[in-house]
Amino acid sequence: MSLNGPKPTSTRRLSVQKIRGQQGECGDDVVVVEEPLEIRLISGQGNNRTERSISVTMRTPGHDFELAAGFLYTEGIVQSPADIENIAYTGLRWQLGQCNTIGVHLHPNVVFDPDLLERHFYTTSSCGVCGKATLEALRIRNRAALSNNGRKISTETIRLVAERLQPAQEVFQQTGGLHAAGLFDPSGNLTSLYEDVGRHNAVDRVIGEHLLKNRLPLHDFILMVSGRASFEIMQKALMGGIPVVAAVSAPSSLAVDLANNFNMTLLGFVRGSNFNIYSGADRIQSV
Amino acid sequence: MSLNGPKPTSTRRLSVQKIRGQQGECGDDVVVVEEPLEIRLISGQGNNRTERSISVTMRTPGHDFELAAGFLYTEGIVQSPADIENIAYTGLRWQLGQCNTIGVHLHPNVVFDPDLLERHFYTTSSCGVCGKATLEALRIRNRAALSNNGRKISTETIRLVAERLQPAQEVFQQTGGLHAAGLFDPSGNLTSLYEDVGRHNAVDRVIGEHLLKNRLPLHDFILMVSGRASFEIMQKALMGGIPVVAAVSAPSSLAVDLANNFNMTLLGFVRGSNFNIYSGADRIQSV
Repeated sequence: MSLNGPKPTSTRRLSVQKIRGQQGECGDDVVVVEEPLEIRLISGQGNNRTERSISVTMRTPGHDFELAAGFLYTEGIVQSPADIENIAYTGLRWQLGQCNTIGVHLHPNVVFDPDLLERHFYTTSSCGVCGKATLEALRIRNRAALSNNGRKISTETIRLVAERLQPAQEVFQQTGGLHAAGLFDPSGNLTSLYEDVGRHNAVDRVIGEHLLKNRLPLHDFILMVSGRASFEIMQKALMGGIPVVAAVSAPSSLAVDLANNFNMTLLGFVRGSNFNIYSGADRIQSV
Repeated sequence: MSLNGPKPTSTRRLSVQKIRGQQGECGDDVVVVEEPLEIRLISGQGNNRTERSISVTMRTPGHDFELAAGFLYTEGIVQSPADIENIAYTGLRWQLGQCNTIGVHLHPNVVFDPDLLERHFYTTSSCGVCGKATLEALRIRNRAALSNNGRKISTETIRLVAERLQPAQEVFQQTGGLHAAGLFDPSGNLTSLYEDVGRHNAVDRVIGEHLLKNRLPLHDFILMVSGRASFEIMQKALMGGIPVVAAVSAPSSLAVDLANNFNMTLLGFVRGSNFNIYSGADRIQSV
């Protein structure tokens, strides 16, 4: 299965008026592209073929196959790369852009239970749980706390991770308009970076890439996100087996709760050599 | 109908380890509270009473009645305050906190068509459309472009709006961890301000407050948001009739498209006396 879709268009140049105090002038600006992506699940062949739309998300185009795979994994629909037979763009149905519909062909052994995932409509943002019909559905299915392998991460590694995220955010440098999620190895080397208008999409791509490469779970890795750490980010990291999450900005109460409940390390306000440890301090080498 | 729910808990103090270079110390930090809110629609009385869960969103507790009302309005479920007979907390079903389920009793004349709103599950953030089963559903139902009343907004008013938003963000000052949406009158006076882990919730509260006070549409007002301007923010502003949206940070391509299509004014990177006009420059007094 190819991981390469069409070349994405992640930025758009347009004309703006720039007001600078009492001065006004016409000029150009580059904005980040936001377009809908529909994910459709396909099962069976021939007369037994069924297809159903399971999600529409706003996203920045690019790495849509990783996004779809990561979404299916963090939602518990697929458990291994073998569960996915094929991913392909299936239509040009939306006039704003091309390639905004993806079909994922599931392996015949995968049982997709729509009732399990049935949700009514939702309100949300920053949330991996919305739209489920009841609050009880917030509980994370079948996930155990992450184990502690005894390896310690030094503050120097955290400093490297913090320093290396922003220079890698190429689209952000152009537009100032989107989130990023970077995956770092235990030495602080960047192994994956994705940018998107939605933080959760960037994290789904990290996990989707490693699902498709059959490299999950990511027990030795550190996830760093450009903004805040919400419940949703922690939930996705947990699903991918990532024990350490670092955020440039603040965590929410529910992110801290989830980290505590599942033995995850949560670092906030990670800037240079400074950061706060909200949970799982035993993975950080004491200074 | 009372607008006052129980006193909200929007922050939580907890112990953290603060790493500052080679120094580490224990200390306190205040994080923003993130908890789920379930909205349930209630129709009829006695034996004819029906109740259905229509949404779960992650939000910062507080002003939940305004949030529910604004959500129902921006989703097109209610059109006037008379469509809502009552709003009340209905349960203590979620162990993480109290008062996380709201029941909205609709007027008997309101026909709620679940098929219209039926969505499958979604992936999203920053999006008022996700979860709808098809991309076509992205189109905004029955909304005309906003008219131009001929009134011009001065750059001085924009400067005032920009200056007044952040000092009003009380929870942000404590936590650094959430979004804000402020509504300003034509003179740049702040009339409503809400903060939340989700930007869309803050905007829903602005609109919900004015729905419940029977003050919609907000044709003379300016909405300023603390972060980026996404499609979702513009869609909600459009539903509330707000013609001018200002954002501290960058707009997305789809936000600009929506603003152009519906004759809205969209300002980005609004900082002090400087900003960019992405759409609807005719509402801004030329400098």
